Amino acid sequence: MATPDAPTQQLAQAALSSSMKVESRDGDVTGSVYSFLVHKDSGRVTHAVLSLGGFLGVGKSYYPLPFELLQFDPVRDRYVVTVDKRMLEGGPSWASNAPVFDQAYADRVASYYGVRAERLA
Amino acid sequence: MATPDAPTQQLAQAALSSSMKVESRDGDVTGSVYSFLVHKDSGRVTHAVLSLGGFLGVGKSYYPLPFELLQFDPVRDRYVVTVDKRMLEGGPSWASNAPVFDQAYADRVASYYGVRAERLA
Repeated sequence: MATPDAPTQQLAQAALSSSMKVESRDGDVTGSVYSFLVHKDSGRVTHAVLSLGGFLGVGKSYYPLPFELLQFDPVRDRYVVTVDKRMLEGGPSWASNAPVFDQAYADRVASYYGVRAERLA
Repeated sequence: MATPDAPTQQLAQAALSSSMKVESRDGDVTGSVYSFLVHKDSGRVTHAVLSLGGFLGVGKSYYPLPFELLQFDPVRDRYVVTVDKRMLEGGPSWASNAPVFDQAYADRVASYYGVRAERLA
């Protein structure tokens, strides 16, 4: 299956039972939240893995986004991301082979989006 | 399917991609973590839903446990729960019909385990 795996001992991947939409500030629906990466020790979601693109589930890619870049809209029950679609699409992602989501990968994601790196250990 | 559903607008249920074992302090393996309930706004895991009992997946029941009662053991990559198996088994649970996990249900879980109630709103 073209799904990302639980990446390290520090993070657990948990797939949303009911998918949640994600859109950019301007209202473009950019995709949905496929899963959360949860720091096992603290119980904090460090990243949301977005599912973007594809057709009928084929050709989708997965984009890990630092959770702090998502804002929950309780009225419409969806997340609004504070980066635009083009930046998202150029960001770290995978299609079928999930990377090892270690400190180096987390640092790369943080660096791309210009946020503080998560300390996973 | 005998799985719990995403319970309210405030909480998202996310099923672990790789199951994690849970045991009690005395080393009895009591089950596994089936899912996390994640507070959508804050990104905090409020509850772990444990899967206990059953045989080959039949007859399992689901037990929501306040996350603060789980301690992560990084050496053995599992959670240790600070309540004993008997208390767990007597706690709020469901088999096939997941409850609406609203404030009243969260309060009931908190009250049973004697922890501070989560404010979901």
